Amino acid sequence: MSNRVAIIGVGLSKFGELWEQSIVDITLEAAMVAIFDSGVRGADIEAVCIGNMSAGRFTGQEHLGALAVDAGGLGGVPAYSVEAACASGGAAVRQAYMAIRSGEHDVMMVLGTEKMSDVNQTEAMNTISVASDWEWEGMFGATFPALYAFIARRHMKEYGTTEEQLSLPTVKNHANAAHNPYAQFQRPVPLKVVMGSGMLADPIRVLHSSPVTDGAAGLIMCSEEKAKEYTDTPVYIESSTQASDTLALHDRRDICTMDAVVKSSKEALEKAKVEIKDIDVFELHDSFTIGEITLTEDVGIAKKGEGGQTLSDGLTEIGGKFPVNTSGGLKARGHPIGATGVAQIVELALQLREQGGGRQVDGAERGLAVNIGGTGATSIVHILGR
Amino acid sequence: MSNRVAIIGVGLSKFGELWEQSIVDITLEAAMVAIFDSGVRGADIEAVCIGNMSAGRFTGQEHLGALAVDAGGLGGVPAYSVEAACASGGAAVRQAYMAIRSGEHDVMMVLGTEKMSDVNQTEAMNTISVASDWEWEGMFGATFPALYAFIARRHMKEYGTTEEQLSLPTVKNHANAAHNPYAQFQRPVPLKVVMGSGMLADPIRVLHSSPVTDGAAGLIMCSEEKAKEYTDTPVYIESSTQASDTLALHDRRDICTMDAVVKSSKEALEKAKVEIKDIDVFELHDSFTIGEITLTEDVGIAKKGEGGQTLSDGLTEIGGKFPVNTSGGLKARGHPIGATGVAQIVELALQLREQGGGRQVDGAERGLAVNIGGTGATSIVHILGR
Repeated sequence: MSNRVAIIGVGLSKFGELWEQSIVDITLEAAMVAIFDSGVRGADIEAVCIGNMSAGRFTGQEHLGALAVDAGGLGGVPAYSVEAACASGGAAVRQAYMAIRSGEHDVMMVLGTEKMSDVNQTEAMNTISVASDWEWEGMFGATFPALYAFIARRHMKEYGTTEEQLSLPTVKNHANAAHNPYAQFQRPVPLKVVMGSGMLADPIRVLHSSPVTDGAAGLIMCSEEKAKEYTDTPVYIESSTQASDTLALHDRRDICTMDAVVKSSKEALEKAKVEIKDIDVFELHDSFTIGEITLTEDVGIAKKGEGGQTLSDGLTEIGGKFPVNTSGGLKARGHPIGATGVAQIVELALQLREQGGGRQVDGAERGLAVNIGGTGATSIVHILGR
Repeated sequence: MSNRVAIIGVGLSKFGELWEQSIVDITLEAAMVAIFDSGVRGADIEAVCIGNMSAGRFTGQEHLGALAVDAGGLGGVPAYSVEAACASGGAAVRQAYMAIRSGEHDVMMVLGTEKMSDVNQTEAMNTISVASDWEWEGMFGATFPALYAFIARRHMKEYGTTEEQLSLPTVKNHANAAHNPYAQFQRPVPLKVVMGSGMLADPIRVLHSSPVTDGAAGLIMCSEEKAKEYTDTPVYIESSTQASDTLALHDRRDICTMDAVVKSSKEALEKAKVEIKDIDVFELHDSFTIGEITLTEDVGIAKKGEGGQTLSDGLTEIGGKFPVNTSGGLKARGHPIGATGVAQIVELALQLREQGGGRQVDGAERGLAVNIGGTGATSIVHILGR
């Protein structure tokens, strides 16, 4: 049996502050786009897997699996949610990958969704903190900007990373998002504005942080054999890997390295039998810009400590050797928590299908996504090929 | 490749109001018991799958997968949570079943957990309502006792089910739980006491309802081939099925029949190539006693409408033809939401290993568990054999 699983349809809702839509509305929007994109009929879908972190707190509604099947008119097929904090979307993709490979389901829909703007900012921040170690971090006020500030300060001290370099992912990702009609922020932001934006947790500024976002993403996935019935241009998941690290940042051997990312990306490359140089396009989890910097190091684009310089050199821009976050990333496309990991795969699939429009990476044949949870306690890596 | 997956270790924490333990404490307690029971080393465990509904609301902590791996010292293996309301535990078992069959993991730990008593009763009730259709049920005050009251009243009107019959599952399940050292309520309750207990939502009384419970359950699962390395007495999952129904009760064609249960239990019997008469022991989701009554009908123990009479006839007692909820069920063992579906499988495994003690069903060779979410919007069925 082939280890590959096909992606035959992709869809996104608009990402942003969607005051007039419910979580059901945005989730179904992404689902319908993915279904139409794939050419499958609703009746062909055998199961639904949803990536979501905290709909219970954000919206008062869990049990999203049954709800999506009900509202989507999908005829009572099995459905469930998967949660791994900010990596919930990637986890949902990975569950479907395993379910299809198990032979239990042939055609599945994967959805990722989060509706974050229906609660006030304080409750939103508290809810996001469920992804950290609540007893040792969140409870003491160590919110995510604070935790990533520790990483950033340490990276600056150890490797000489500058405030300008800390700002470059924002500039790059906003420039990319200007070509993404689904992105929350479709406009470039000058470096000076980023570096002058409000300080959240020194050295992390507002524009070093991903926003609070409502949004959903969808995929239709199926076995390699089945894909030929629906499309001539399937994209394949060539490997899917996952690893864990300590939940609390202070328990790590080195807070500048996400060991779970190192491990899972190494395994993903091995399983796909490729090297980092063979990857044409990347989606790397930039909930904070320092995250994009360390991830470029941890997946092997840059040596440890040189992630900032790699940005200064333009290596990760579209047109560079290793384009990162062509979609605009979490920073500019937006970061609806449970949707993010699925949206990363949507972007890679669009790139491999050469449907990236103004942000297309020429001739992209292989892509890699890293979706992390918390400060890297969960890392999920997918490599896609065409 | 065999479709069977082995269960080689089982564990429970104490079920009850565990004021002095955190969600991490109880989850690890069940994990450790399951690991010791199985004989695997921690290093043998390749992934962890956790059934949980609302730790984010009940405890402020999500990302339980990475947390369990971290706190359990399991060396960074992949981990994630699965949510399908009150069927979250069954969904986690099913995910592991598929992950092992996919070849991605050989030995997995499944945990189910919920810590419900750390919030006040109002917040507990609101949190439980995330499993209903919030926009159409929960928001209007239709809590679960109210929703099940609709089912019960209708069943009484249609089929002549009596208040006494509505009380019999409680009497039976408390009698069974008296022999279960992990159960929340280890004492018999006379019929008169049940029928005189406080009215929650006519005709449903306090003692027709499962309690708010803290508790966790664990399983070590592996491929059939691998099981032989660890044990001479594996128990096998012979089939795993799932189906969905409308989330809101009022959208059903018949509120006395859970179509998702009918569908998934029929499929489970077919896949296991057995009939209902071949099943020796059952765990049926009795969040309310009317639920146990309708489930005996929907899985085929009783004809539609005769579930109450089946109880009056003693058919589902230990020693009867179809023993149901030997563990004490949700009513008396307790119902820590995410743990319940895993605890059901623990009970069946103990029965098939003839370790049921005072509640053992003589010569039990095959068991069936139904774990439902909400009022039956999700149904997950597992058939176990030895």
